[in-house]
Amino acid sequence: MAIMSGAELKESFQRMKPEVYARGERAEDVTEHPFLKPAFEARARFHDFMRDPKYKEKVTSISNVVPGEKIPNFVRLYDSAEYLVERFVTGRWVRRFFPRSGGSADSVNAVWATTYDCEKKYGTEYHERFKEFLKYVHKNGLTCSITQTDVKGDRSKRPIEQSDPDMFVHKVETRKDGIVVRGAKAHQSSSIHCHEIICMPTRRMREDEKDYSVGFAIPTNTKGLIQICGRQPSDLRRLEGMEIDWGMPQFGGTEAMVILDDVFVPWDRVFLNGEWDFTTGMMETFANVHRVIYALKCNLGDFLIGAAAQVAEYNGAAKASHIRSKLVDMVILNETMYCCGLAAASRGVKTPSGVWHDDPVLSNVVKNNVTKNMYEIGRLAEDIAGGQITTQPSEKDWRNPKTRPYIEKYLKGVDGVPTEHRMRMFKLIEFFTYGQGSTYSRAEAMHGAGAPEMQKVFINRMYDFESLKRLARMACGIEKQEYF
Amino acid sequence: MAIMSGAELKESFQRMKPEVYARGERAEDVTEHPFLKPAFEARARFHDFMRDPKYKEKVTSISNVVPGEKIPNFVRLYDSAEYLVERFVTGRWVRRFFPRSGGSADSVNAVWATTYDCEKKYGTEYHERFKEFLKYVHKNGLTCSITQTDVKGDRSKRPIEQSDPDMFVHKVETRKDGIVVRGAKAHQSSSIHCHEIICMPTRRMREDEKDYSVGFAIPTNTKGLIQICGRQPSDLRRLEGMEIDWGMPQFGGTEAMVILDDVFVPWDRVFLNGEWDFTTGMMETFANVHRVIYALKCNLGDFLIGAAAQVAEYNGAAKASHIRSKLVDMVILNETMYCCGLAAASRGVKTPSGVWHDDPVLSNVVKNNVTKNMYEIGRLAEDIAGGQITTQPSEKDWRNPKTRPYIEKYLKGVDGVPTEHRMRMFKLIEFFTYGQGSTYSRAEAMHGAGAPEMQKVFINRMYDFESLKRLARMACGIEKQEYF
Amino acid sequence: MAIMSGAELKESFQRMKPEVYARGERAEDVTEHPFLKPAFEARARFHDFMRDPKYKEKVTSISNVVPGEKIPNFVRLYDSAEYLVERFVTGRWVRRFFPRSGGSADSVNAVWATTYDCEKKYGTEYHERFKEFLKYVHKNGLTCSITQTDVKGDRSKRPIEQSDPDMFVHKVETRKDGIVVRGAKAHQSSSIHCHEIICMPTRRMREDEKDYSVGFAIPTNTKGLIQICGRQPSDLRRLEGMEIDWGMPQFGGTEAMVILDDVFVPWDRVFLNGEWDFTTGMMETFANVHRVIYALKCNLGDFLIGAAAQVAEYNGAAKASHIRSKLVDMVILNETMYCCGLAAASRGVKTPSGVWHDDPVLSNVVKNNVTKNMYEIGRLAEDIAGGQITTQPSEKDWRNPKTRPYIEKYLKGVDGVPTEHRMRMFKLIEFFTYGQGSTYSRAEAMHGAGAPEMQKVFINRMYDFESLKRLARMACGIEKQEYF
Amino acid sequence: MAIMSGAELKESFQRMKPEVYARGERAEDVTEHPFLKPAFEARARFHDFMRDPKYKEKVTSISNVVPGEKIPNFVRLYDSAEYLVERFVTGRWVRRFFPRSGGSADSVNAVWATTYDCEKKYGTEYHERFKEFLKYVHKNGLTCSITQTDVKGDRSKRPIEQSDPDMFVHKVETRKDGIVVRGAKAHQSSSIHCHEIICMPTRRMREDEKDYSVGFAIPTNTKGLIQICGRQPSDLRRLEGMEIDWGMPQFGGTEAMVILDDVFVPWDRVFLNGEWDFTTGMMETFANVHRVIYALKCNLGDFLIGAAAQVAEYNGAAKASHIRSKLVDMVILNETMYCCGLAAASRGVKTPSGVWHDDPVLSNVVKNNVTKNMYEIGRLAEDIAGGQITTQPSEKDWRNPKTRPYIEKYLKGVDGVPTEHRMRMFKLIEFFTYGQGSTYSRAEAMHGAGAPEMQKVFINRMYDFESLKRLARMACGIEKQEYF
Repeated sequence: MAIMSGAELKESFQRMKPEVYARGERAEDVTEHPFLKPAFEARARFHDFMRDPKYKEKVTSISNVVPGEKIPNFVRLYDSAEYLVERFVTGRWVRRFFPRSGGSADSVNAVWATTYDCEKKYGTEYHERFKEFLKYVHKNGLTCSITQTDVKGDRSKRPIEQSDPDMFVHKVETRKDGIVVRGAKAHQSSSIHCHEIICMPTRRMREDEKDYSVGFAIPTNTKGLIQICGRQPSDLRRLEGMEIDWGMPQFGGTEAMVILDDVFVPWDRVFLNGEWDFTTGMMETFANVHRVIYALKCNLGDFLIGAAAQVAEYNGAAKASHIRSKLVDMVILNETMYCCGLAAASRGVKTPSGVWHDDPVLSNVVKNNVTKNMYEIGRLAEDIAGGQITTQPSEKDWRNPKTRPYIEKYLKGVDGVPTEHRMRMFKLIEFFTYGQGSTYSRAEAMHGAGAPEMQKVFINRMYDFESLKRLARMACGIEKQEYF
Repeated sequence: MAIMSGAELKESFQRMKPEVYARGERAEDVTEHPFLKPAFEARARFHDFMRDPKYKEKVTSISNVVPGEKIPNFVRLYDSAEYLVERFVTGRWVRRFFPRSGGSADSVNAVWATTYDCEKKYGTEYHERFKEFLKYVHKNGLTCSITQTDVKGDRSKRPIEQSDPDMFVHKVETRKDGIVVRGAKAHQSSSIHCHEIICMPTRRMREDEKDYSVGFAIPTNTKGLIQICGRQPSDLRRLEGMEIDWGMPQFGGTEAMVILDDVFVPWDRVFLNGEWDFTTGMMETFANVHRVIYALKCNLGDFLIGAAAQVAEYNGAAKASHIRSKLVDMVILNETMYCCGLAAASRGVKTPSGVWHDDPVLSNVVKNNVTKNMYEIGRLAEDIAGGQITTQPSEKDWRNPKTRPYIEKYLKGVDGVPTEHRMRMFKLIEFFTYGQGSTYSRAEAMHGAGAPEMQKVFINRMYDFESLKRLARMACGIEKQEYF
Repeated sequence: MAIMSGAELKESFQRMKPEVYARGERAEDVTEHPFLKPAFEARARFHDFMRDPKYKEKVTSISNVVPGEKIPNFVRLYDSAEYLVERFVTGRWVRRFFPRSGGSADSVNAVWATTYDCEKKYGTEYHERFKEFLKYVHKNGLTCSITQTDVKGDRSKRPIEQSDPDMFVHKVETRKDGIVVRGAKAHQSSSIHCHEIICMPTRRMREDEKDYSVGFAIPTNTKGLIQICGRQPSDLRRLEGMEIDWGMPQFGGTEAMVILDDVFVPWDRVFLNGEWDFTTGMMETFANVHRVIYALKCNLGDFLIGAAAQVAEYNGAAKASHIRSKLVDMVILNETMYCCGLAAASRGVKTPSGVWHDDPVLSNVVKNNVTKNMYEIGRLAEDIAGGQITTQPSEKDWRNPKTRPYIEKYLKGVDGVPTEHRMRMFKLIEFFTYGQGSTYSRAEAMHGAGAPEMQKVFINRMYDFESLKRLARMACGIEKQEYF
Repeated sequence: MAIMSGAELKESFQRMKPEVYARGERAEDVTEHPFLKPAFEARARFHDFMRDPKYKEKVTSISNVVPGEKIPNFVRLYDSAEYLVERFVTGRWVRRFFPRSGGSADSVNAVWATTYDCEKKYGTEYHERFKEFLKYVHKNGLTCSITQTDVKGDRSKRPIEQSDPDMFVHKVETRKDGIVVRGAKAHQSSSIHCHEIICMPTRRMREDEKDYSVGFAIPTNTKGLIQICGRQPSDLRRLEGMEIDWGMPQFGGTEAMVILDDVFVPWDRVFLNGEWDFTTGMMETFANVHRVIYALKCNLGDFLIGAAAQVAEYNGAAKASHIRSKLVDMVILNETMYCCGLAAASRGVKTPSGVWHDDPVLSNVVKNNVTKNMYEIGRLAEDIAGGQITTQPSEKDWRNPKTRPYIEKYLKGVDGVPTEHRMRMFKLIEFFTYGQGSTYSRAEAMHGAGAPEMQKVFINRMYDFESLKRLARMACGIEKQEYF
């Protein structure tokens, strides 16, 4: 069916009726619940965009698995090194128009590669099943989300040691036609507006944790799959009917806890089933291809830089040397993240499965920089903007005829700029530093795709320290080498 | 009347009926408006505390100007070097119990000193007037707030160059019995729950800006004095009737834009009137004694450290080496702010007026460290805590019988800790990183008492670079010195 | 003559006899003076390397201007985007074997592009001349160095305002057969072991500074061209006849002040002569292609990481969690520099002249990161290694039979590692943190290719802040856009 | 004998003839060996200073243990809280004139307190012995050095587990008249120019390590006590006979490995002998009082700030906004260290022994800041100064008539400043960033009094995290508290 329009996308969820809760109630129509609607709106607009003749070439492709089928790039296989780089270049261009309208290419490409490896070793049919699943996704224009992070319970204990065995998703029953799984996945960005959920282990399992070594995909309206939305900073402003104080009305996203309450998964949707020695590979492969994409947090940095530069101008401070210096520092921090992403992609390698993956060490370098740089970018934006981010009166005060004249008069900056514009710009900065957008510019920058320590653990394990130690030994004369 | 009880304090404002707007409406009873009530509650509790025999000795004194009168320390004159240090030691102890129940000692002591200097030079009676004002405050147990930061309009222009002459507070009329002033002061923390407002210039004025060189004090219910409250992150959660999601229900503060719509000030309340050459002194003296007090942002750091350490324990991660390392980093950052405050106080000097002021350069060192350290402390807290800060379901979902069992089960951490406790702790961290508390832990840490650049401007001007240059010249043999 | 061997290279300088001074004396044979010899040795080895069948493919090419001529990559034109990236990949691989055996490709490619632009505009024959010069270089296997940084005198004044007009290199006479130039260029890395010097303006000139708007190339033994070497930290250890205390004996480099004492330049070597409006282009083009190459400072980071990891192992501390954490931090800092270089190259663009240049903004991002990251890498190396970097007895004490047994016994680390090895490794770290190598790992990282502020000035001027401001205006609803 | 003059001090060492090796030879006269002489000169000048009527009051006291005896403050007991603060104020004032003429008050006060505690518990006579020792020191005007850091061998093993049992100093024999000890102490700053060495354990010992639990004092010319000096960056410049290139000729210090080759210690000099449970106390007490004193590294920061400000002026760049900004950043970093020291002192507590010690947690905060701030101060100095730090020709070139005119002409900065002055100033910065002075501004700042991790280990163990966790629990409503 090619690519759904925005309206079709919303209708598809109205038909599916996934079981979603938000702010203490079931969201009967997920596309209309005020906590969820902005995410659906943003996503719907992106679907229209993918069909717009002016833009569609950049963001859609022809499927590798369904001949001739037009598909969104976000379910595309990474079939060349060039495309790895290109997705960052396009990603930066596109996200400016459609923030938070993400995708799932990371998971598709990670599962593609690891099911392939597993099939090679054990003769399982996981890769074939996944290919069929991907065809189905491509043919029907579906959106997918990956769920990985288990709720984990007591972090000092392994899955099998927890007092409640359900702290990590696991198989509780094997039936003739499939398996039954139980558990919960935390922090699922975008799962609310996805048709399918791909589920994989969150950590390395041991031999005695075979039941925890499961991977699969299911539709989000599967019986027993329950999603409970998390709340975001200043989320209630969505209910106020105002616009300025919202900050960036076009932007929206959701995170949910995805509960699997004895959910049945048919065999053709099972991609890992007890092969515990492949959990590391599946988990890490996804982690690495997912971490690299955080380089595109520079898109959010772009908003903060633009807003800080703009508000400085509105304030009459755009030429102050310390303001220029801080703006440039923001640019350097932001472009450094982008650079790391481009670099990891440019050093990508072809996996045995045929898809290309970014350099794994550099992918972790990307993410770790993001966990620091985004915070510093935000801090600088707050510094440049000034205290009005926090002390600006409510939009309702501005709309109140009694107080409006005072606000119009006293919150004016340079001549020629309406007070309203200045107020809007402050609220945009608030949005990305303390507001809903900070969910993406800070919280997700920190913990999405794994906390900072996870990147360091990976680098510590994978980095070739041995060759550098040998280099040092040669340099100081302990080992001899021809060209020293 | 000695020190008001909490109930008396609230009654006093119910009687005064200051003109305050919040979220588009006039707050008829400021102590009860949901945006303002938390601030009044916190303050009222502190007033009861000041009368509690167990604690009162630490936080109250006998007035220096009204013999025998018991007064809160927050309107006390700094009459010794020891007290400068002691106020930090006590301040740290006290604030843990009454966050955001601040005071105005900075302004009282700054105006005391600068009116004295002005009186010495010009024979004005400003200091005598201020002393009478202070007696009145002490006798009646009043609270004061200082307003300094003008709205400023176009920052590239001086007050007199603005297209609207009201961008800085100025005198618009001199009457027989006093003066009439117009303008607006931005970002006024605590002014809502103060009886009196002390107003002073925000910058150095020139000779042609005499009308802008005014200082005075007026009651907050003076005709023409209008306050419009700013909104804070997640402020609407105060309206939800929930408690967990509020983060720290006992805590509250307000910031307001204070508008002076042709307000009359009688002569006995005028403390500066055209002496433009004293604007620098008045502004800087206040800035310095105010900046030093930001060392007590360590009190907020204490909450973040405690919450991060606690949530790590709830998560079962308290012993992980990287967690310990980050907690210690938070301590170092936090204690460094406290240290700078103690140091500036310990090097305090006696002013000609008799009150003691902290070392001015070190006071600016304090504040500049705060503008960075508080952000890093918050970042580390977010790192340690994990993504649940942002993705935790609403308290209403926890109270919904349908979803509560899932939440209870899956958001549990280590055995023995109720899920509710863990949820509360995450929301406390959210409170101080993205929530209402971030108004104080971040926005105010950055911009309160002047943006970071203001401290650098001051240090650049006041620091004795000459003596260090001479030291360097001696060290490398350019200048000779006896003991080299 | 294709590529010189190491011996041929040294002979060529023994024949040329450039006028070079070091430590108060004329170096009669530059290849043998103890301050200069290490640089020649390193360079000579690299020349042998370029002829070694095992390696030569990676580091040599066929000339673009002299058909069939084999040339070192360091005088190669950048004729494709792929090569821009490849030079980093190869550069990292190669430098591990031959530190400080740099090249001049940056200058060749910058002058190629700007002379082309100038010729297009003014019909000068500069580009043709430069092409002929490059043919000569390629045919004769010569090495080139660029000199740009004038000594500058009083930095607050323009060239024409200086009390001594020679503070910037300028033309003092125009003859029939060429021009005569005077001035001095500071901080010339590698000029000592180059056959030819390319000279270009260091800053933007104005119309009244036409005489300062000159570019040219001359052999380093031209009459009037005098080089005075700078000294390096611990440079005298080269005279001691010891090896361990030298740190990294195979490594060497030089910096010189290059004085042009009324030097004659024939017309065929003049590439700019009064076209003041091209000084910016020539200066900036070089600055950008030069700054990007600083990404390869990661090669020095590699030594520090390897040495720190090795010494931690020798100390028995390699498994301590804080040591691992710091080693990984070093990797992240180091790879970030490399990533920025790869990224700038991957976004390279073709200039009108046909050669490709890295993205200019990202090139400046590279260099600015280097000015910070290298310092932090060094600091972490010192932290990991311990105080013995500084307190280790002299190699002479180790060679003294009286003290050797004590040193052997007490400076031993883990069993199985000779004390000598541990001593060598400490000295390697000293070399790159306080020693001669710090000239390259710190001083050059900071100031080479322009001080940190220069990169910020460039970014401030060239970065497209306007588009980000527009993005911000669209985001908060000030401007409308189709897909918002 | 009161306080020795500088000449008397030198004579005393010429008489003592301690066994000291440096650069492969025995230093027959330690006061004249070129590697050691600068340290003796600096120290001798300080002794003259202590007798100068203009200064002596600030730096000398009357002994607490020998009635009426005038003593240097550096062997004084800390007998009041005020003195703890005063020693920083004076320390800052004094060190500007006599860098690196340190003392040993830290060790005297630490051993005083811990021998007291041990005597209380076990009835040993260690405290009485130490008091007698201190009387002897005071009466004879002696200087002391503490040695703590064992060479440690394999850091992953305890003292008793090492393959060579001598990796930590231990008792090898008990005689009737005393004990015999063996081992070596690394990194001993100043021991060369001290009359007495106080030795204490470097770590917590266990019950099976009683022989390693020894503390004592011995004269530095005791038989078997051998000192081998470490080398410093650019140390050979002391042999060149030049002055400018030395950087700061008046400054000098030494570090030595102190070897105890079966050294006999009589009973009256034994202060710990097997009481393994006091090793922690002795080690930590010293560590804390020693760490706090690192706040005075701000004295070295003062040189760097002064030199950077001065060289900026010589360069004509003193008014550039980025230069001012960096100079102020240096000040903030530097004063922050000083502040932490003042604060730790101002919160000092009286020990049971009667002497006062700084707050132990804050003492560790001091030191940890120093390990970072000094490096950043150095980095900023290098940034401000420019590349000439590294590329300046040798002083011998400046003295060579052939090259001097070029250097005079081309290394001139602003008018009116001799080129020589500018050259000297660059070398002063080199001295403290790469040169001999970096031994103190960087290496010692990092590792003196324990590596950065040691401070974190201490804070992690001693900080009252429990009270902050409780605070957090109260704040979010888990625990109830009266005033919340």
